[in-house]
Amino acid sequence: MPASQSMRNAANSRPLDGAVSIAPDGAEYPLPTPEALARQMADIKRRGARRPVVVVQGLGFVGSAVAAVLADASDADGQPRWFVIGVDLASVASWWKVARINEGRVPIQAPDPEFDRLVRRGALERGNLCATASEEAYELAEVIVVDVQLDVCDRLAQAPSDIRLDLRGFEAAIRTVGRRMRPDALVLVETTVPIGTCEKIVLPILQDERARRGIHAPVRLAHAYERVMPGPRYIESICCFWRTYAGVDETSTDRARVFLSSFIQTDEFAAWPLADTASSELGKVLENSYRAANIAFIHEWTLFAEKAGINLWAVIDSIRVRKGTHDNMRYPGFGVGGYCLTKDSLLAQWAATHLYHTDTAFGVTLAALQINNDMPLHTLGLLRELNEGSLRGRGLLLAGVSYFPDLADTRNSPAEVFVDAALAEGAQVSLHDPCVQRWPERPGLPISSNWADAVAQAAAIVLAVPHSAYRKLKPSDFPHPLLIVDANNVLTDSLATALHQAGCRLLGVGKGHWRLQGLHLPRA
Amino acid sequence: MPASQSMRNAANSRPLDGAVSIAPDGAEYPLPTPEALARQMADIKRRGARRPVVVVQGLGFVGSAVAAVLADASDADGQPRWFVIGVDLASVASWWKVARINEGRVPIQAPDPEFDRLVRRGALERGNLCATASEEAYELAEVIVVDVQLDVCDRLAQAPSDIRLDLRGFEAAIRTVGRRMRPDALVLVETTVPIGTCEKIVLPILQDERARRGIHAPVRLAHAYERVMPGPRYIESICCFWRTYAGVDETSTDRARVFLSSFIQTDEFAAWPLADTASSELGKVLENSYRAANIAFIHEWTLFAEKAGINLWAVIDSIRVRKGTHDNMRYPGFGVGGYCLTKDSLLAQWAATHLYHTDTAFGVTLAALQINNDMPLHTLGLLRELNEGSLRGRGLLLAGVSYFPDLADTRNSPAEVFVDAALAEGAQVSLHDPCVQRWPERPGLPISSNWADAVAQAAAIVLAVPHSAYRKLKPSDFPHPLLIVDANNVLTDSLATALHQAGCRLLGVGKGHWRLQGLHLPRA
Repeated sequence: MPASQSMRNAANSRPLDGAVSIAPDGAEYPLPTPEALARQMADIKRRGARRPVVVVQGLGFVGSAVAAVLADASDADGQPRWFVIGVDLASVASWWKVARINEGRVPIQAPDPEFDRLVRRGALERGNLCATASEEAYELAEVIVVDVQLDVCDRLAQAPSDIRLDLRGFEAAIRTVGRRMRPDALVLVETTVPIGTCEKIVLPILQDERARRGIHAPVRLAHAYERVMPGPRYIESICCFWRTYAGVDETSTDRARVFLSSFIQTDEFAAWPLADTASSELGKVLENSYRAANIAFIHEWTLFAEKAGINLWAVIDSIRVRKGTHDNMRYPGFGVGGYCLTKDSLLAQWAATHLYHTDTAFGVTLAALQINNDMPLHTLGLLRELNEGSLRGRGLLLAGVSYFPDLADTRNSPAEVFVDAALAEGAQVSLHDPCVQRWPERPGLPISSNWADAVAQAAAIVLAVPHSAYRKLKPSDFPHPLLIVDANNVLTDSLATALHQAGCRLLGVGKGHWRLQGLHLPRA
Repeated sequence: MPASQSMRNAANSRPLDGAVSIAPDGAEYPLPTPEALARQMADIKRRGARRPVVVVQGLGFVGSAVAAVLADASDADGQPRWFVIGVDLASVASWWKVARINEGRVPIQAPDPEFDRLVRRGALERGNLCATASEEAYELAEVIVVDVQLDVCDRLAQAPSDIRLDLRGFEAAIRTVGRRMRPDALVLVETTVPIGTCEKIVLPILQDERARRGIHAPVRLAHAYERVMPGPRYIESICCFWRTYAGVDETSTDRARVFLSSFIQTDEFAAWPLADTASSELGKVLENSYRAANIAFIHEWTLFAEKAGINLWAVIDSIRVRKGTHDNMRYPGFGVGGYCLTKDSLLAQWAATHLYHTDTAFGVTLAALQINNDMPLHTLGLLRELNEGSLRGRGLLLAGVSYFPDLADTRNSPAEVFVDAALAEGAQVSLHDPCVQRWPERPGLPISSNWADAVAQAAAIVLAVPHSAYRKLKPSDFPHPLLIVDANNVLTDSLATALHQAGCRLLGVGKGHWRLQGLHLPRA
């Protein structure tokens, strides 16, 4: 999950006089003048002179956390291993992240107090973490970690020829690095990229920019994809987790290994070398495609289980005891969201077509993306069934807007597909989420955090996300008879039965037994 | 993997005077006369009078092993817990299995010495294991375990309407049970069946047959699918492995639990109850469909990795470190065989169409079966590529005929698809396998067990199965320049390189790096 803002304009960005960058919480940060940036850079140079410098390019969901972990790394004497400089753009969209880090504050909303602690410690206590928008930072770096966004234009593209990437931001960011980097610096790409990108795109750009500077020494370049997991163990998912890596030559591979071991517990979580950067790039999109395909596979069985009156959740629990062969099986659900699982398969197909010029068709893999995208429409269908017809004019509460329990993250949330379709049908849609205050992807739709108020207006509720708060719901939290679709096994069978007895009508995704028990029927 | 012979004619079977049942090793067993069967039954009654009797119906890959494990079970005093009677048909195809068990010998070829020990001990030492073809056995049983075959007519059927089952044998077997069983006996179905079979097929048959006998007490019926794994831990896969179970009522569920705990180590491998037999039936076909779908998914990535020059085996190794989320990922390979993974998804689709009358389409699930079926054709394509054209007239050695390493089992082996296509192309196909002496599915094709002789005749070799013997191959085992396709990661990179240097031309399934290294090219 790389930086949410691309580096597309890095080379040409000029702060606008008086322009302001606004953080999600409303705090305002005026964009810096060139003079202010220069002063900041002079200060950074002075502070960073004593230690090896690592620059993290892109301060989004991954880069900001990697920078924090790097700043926390220590040498044998307990002294900071690195002086860490985060770089992002002096733009309206991004400058606030730079400012926040320099204040010792995490620039994204993450439910991991360790993240807050590391940023505060690095920026304010140890003094070895800072951020800037000045490209001069790259000139100081022994290692440059690339965490810049690279996204597809349309996540619904299915045919290989329909898939489009906007590579300009990523390429511009790499070009900036090539223009400024030291001849012997290691460039470590963490961004999830199309297979072949390091060899076929990054390396030629760096060689070209360096050649203009008269540098003909070999480029030290490696890929080591991140596996950051948003959630309460955000930081742990970086420093205590396996990494795969590969360089474009032996020296690069070796330097990547040494660098990774400087901030990751590689004694316990061994870093895994592969033969070439394309293998590492493939690993990332394969592992996410694997998850996406397995979710789509289960959705197919979910639809049947509901018709047959079978509780698929219980069946899957019984199968997952087979550790090592069957415990990766997924469960039914509302849909698939997030930055990765909704797009990484498209990067693979794009690479096969455009970088390797093959006729490869990732048939099952891409079909899974479409199935997953449409999953929320099945929940809407269950609601329509309970309602015995169109939802036009009905007050519908979607409970859960984020794509993952107990997270504020709404990127590509399946809620989008659900809400768009419900609104198109004429439903009166309202939203509740205990974690999400605003929905950047649907900014016009307010989100309530008050359950009682939200339910009071609703005739129907969809429990979309198994937030902890929803798992604590009681019968009294449903004060009048409602239509309820539980899309994520939020309600226990006993609570569902109690609600049924209180006049609610219920259906559950993958809960065919509720149908058999007549929970979806009005009381006689 | 239930009995290889159906019970279809159980009710009407009459031994033919002078007819002989021949075991795979050539030993002949004359079919019994009715008088001989009656004498055998009288003897069994006398011997079994002291203990509770369990009858295992069907003595194939599952039934014979379950009977052996049941006979080994002991009570707290170390005495046999059960008197076990295996029942199969007095037919040319099946009688030898009955005879073998009574000789204390395992009726199938299984590389697990524990299996031999248990049958010998039960039949010859403890005297609590025997077999017969007499239906009278069911009258003695406290528990009747059904391990009768239930197969699809055509494993290539894809459209729901194309899937055909031959249920007659299974239904006749159940009818026999209903005609003979004690009113309070528990019928435990272990056979993999279409979802809903116990409730919609087995229960009505038993009720009907019992009603004719004036029995109107509730039928005690449960489903507890087996997870027998052919191989060196055959017996362990029964007695030391998880079971899922469910009865048609609470009493049946409870009796199934007690029965399973009499021969399975349920203290360590807890038996898992589900709400209804349909859930248990779904569990089995779901878990096998999961494996099949994941193999098909990886095949798609295999095709790309080969074109891109990536070693997919190494990438998957690097991903599988993620225990619990990614370690069920499959590897590239030659194809998918065996009794279960090639057909269980079809049972699910058939049930959805014919037992539940839904319009369910298991799209991804059935597409996977087709992909897996065609996998061996990809290996043939690699060979054609090495050969730079048609294989007509070329001497082609298929090394590995079974569907699994170090097993003699050839049921639905992917070798069938490969050999049929190679022969159709005009190749001179020969076969080698260190475990398989004869190929029941292609009886006209001899199998050599002498590697040197087999290779001497060949211009090309496909290493299809990672038998242990193949993993020990050395450069000197390839005495002249050959075309070699390694379909299952049998050769190490260093051996492949040595063979390349000796004039062989090689490609590997999922081994794109061999292509990059030029191993597929003739030496300059």
